Amino acid sequence: MTVNLCAQRHDVGMNNASPRHPFDQALSLTARADGGFDGHTHPAYANMVGPYGGVTCAVLLQAVLQHPQRLGDPVVLTANFAAPIAQGPYTVHPRPARTNRSTQHWVVETVQNGEVVALGTVVTAVRRPTWSRPEARPPADVPPPQDLPALPTQALPPWVSRYDMRSVHNAFPDAFDGEEQPEARSVLWVRDEPPRPLDFAALASLSDCFLPRIFLRRRQRALIGTVSLTTYFHADAAALAAQGEAHLLATARGLNYHDGFFDQSGELWSRQGRLLASTHQLVYYKA
Amino acid sequence: MTVNLCAQRHDVGMNNASPRHPFDQALSLTARADGGFDGHTHPAYANMVGPYGGVTCAVLLQAVLQHPQRLGDPVVLTANFAAPIAQGPYTVHPRPARTNRSTQHWVVETVQNGEVVALGTVVTAVRRPTWSRPEARPPADVPPPQDLPALPTQALPPWVSRYDMRSVHNAFPDAFDGEEQPEARSVLWVRDEPPRPLDFAALASLSDCFLPRIFLRRRQRALIGTVSLTTYFHADAAALAAQGEAHLLATARGLNYHDGFFDQSGELWSRQGRLLASTHQLVYYKA
Repeated sequence: MTVNLCAQRHDVGMNNASPRHPFDQALSLTARADGGFDGHTHPAYANMVGPYGGVTCAVLLQAVLQHPQRLGDPVVLTANFAAPIAQGPYTVHPRPARTNRSTQHWVVETVQNGEVVALGTVVTAVRRPTWSRPEARPPADVPPPQDLPALPTQALPPWVSRYDMRSVHNAFPDAFDGEEQPEARSVLWVRDEPPRPLDFAALASLSDCFLPRIFLRRRQRALIGTVSLTTYFHADAAALAAQGEAHLLATARGLNYHDGFFDQSGELWSRQGRLLASTHQLVYYKA
Repeated sequence: MTVNLCAQRHDVGMNNASPRHPFDQALSLTARADGGFDGHTHPAYANMVGPYGGVTCAVLLQAVLQHPQRLGDPVVLTANFAAPIAQGPYTVHPRPARTNRSTQHWVVETVQNGEVVALGTVVTAVRRPTWSRPEARPPADVPPPQDLPALPTQALPPWVSRYDMRSVHNAFPDAFDGEEQPEARSVLWVRDEPPRPLDFAALASLSDCFLPRIFLRRRQRALIGTVSLTTYFHADAAALAAQGEAHLLATARGLNYHDGFFDQSGELWSRQGRLLASTHQLVYYKA
């Protein structure tokens, strides 16, 4: 099945005949009469089981962004992964639960075969310029992405090929030798592949690009699945425009692995060292 | 109004005639015929405007915990604060959006006067014992709570008196003198006041106990309001029982303040140095 999906990849927007980036194809939503949207999983973003979680997040967000009543830009997205998503069509149903003067609270559900497979909440807001400061700093002394090798994507699920990832520190294990490590912190460069100008949906998707911490900690694979992912958008439209198609500097770490669930947190920094998004998730694991 | 609320505090469960802890009173929910619950704000947990956000989170969670279809214990709660909550009655509507074999996905809404004032998602799960490891460590060389002074609560909103908070490092500013600080990291001991055995609802509420980072960073007050709060529960029932009524060791930090929104993250550690919960929030500010 992986082979078939890989073969399909080259038919879906990776050639010059099709001008649309596969990410835009994956996010393509058609308005329905009931206020929802029709969408379809995209083979270029397939994971081991179902689609890459980042795209599931991005689709939830995209439905809000395309909604005619949407006010402002996203400041937070929480996506809960309710059930495996099958390759095929789905519908997405965004609902503005509360609209205030400058913020709006959304509930969004993705439904497949009459059952909820993903659900989330989004807050959009109109930002106004005011006192602003960074507090955290990006990692220092990081070589530029062009000085680092790109992660080889052969034998990995299709979605991995949709990102150019370059490890600065421990983004991927040297080996899956089962040797338990004392910690699982990562630093890497990452951008869409092929390059694509950054927007909120892409940032939502990038929030899930990190290898599950347990793979690094145990240096062995495990059955895992993100249960819930929250992304805080620190970027506004100007910051997105300034970033363009460049690599983002990404960091990830975890706090605790306990009886089937672990957490991980990440930061996505612009090439100028500005925090674009911070992200947190809870992951189910079977060790 | 603050004075009135403070006077009321002593009528609502703080004396020997009433055996119920004010937190249990604040969480009291009565089942409705429509599957929802009736609740009421509690003056002992009043904040400057509306109730303390931690109790708003705890009420969303409590509605799920009391639901007859609930499966397992909470592993993640996201609460979005849609609008100010007025002192008075509300209804809470939990809905199981998806039930799997060992996980369950909930959407919960709190409604007041026909409008959504808070909404959230909860995932509950049945944990099974398996490979487990801590990764983060609690702060080292921390004096015990009894060696530190309790935060004086006079002139502060009523809810602050419902916690016993003892600063280990920078939990509260020495002065509100407007002198901008380079960072806002805190360590403190905290427990319910009066003491109460820890449970999931209390842990949800404690997740919001941290002073807004911007107060520490700028050493001045600002109009702020949590927009969204996510808590990952690392504790299971055994960890809660082991903690009992003891102080939790709590840490908090922020990453970025940008044009009206900042984030903060916290950790809640048991007295034995075990991570009980990690928590993240996005906060609106007017500087």
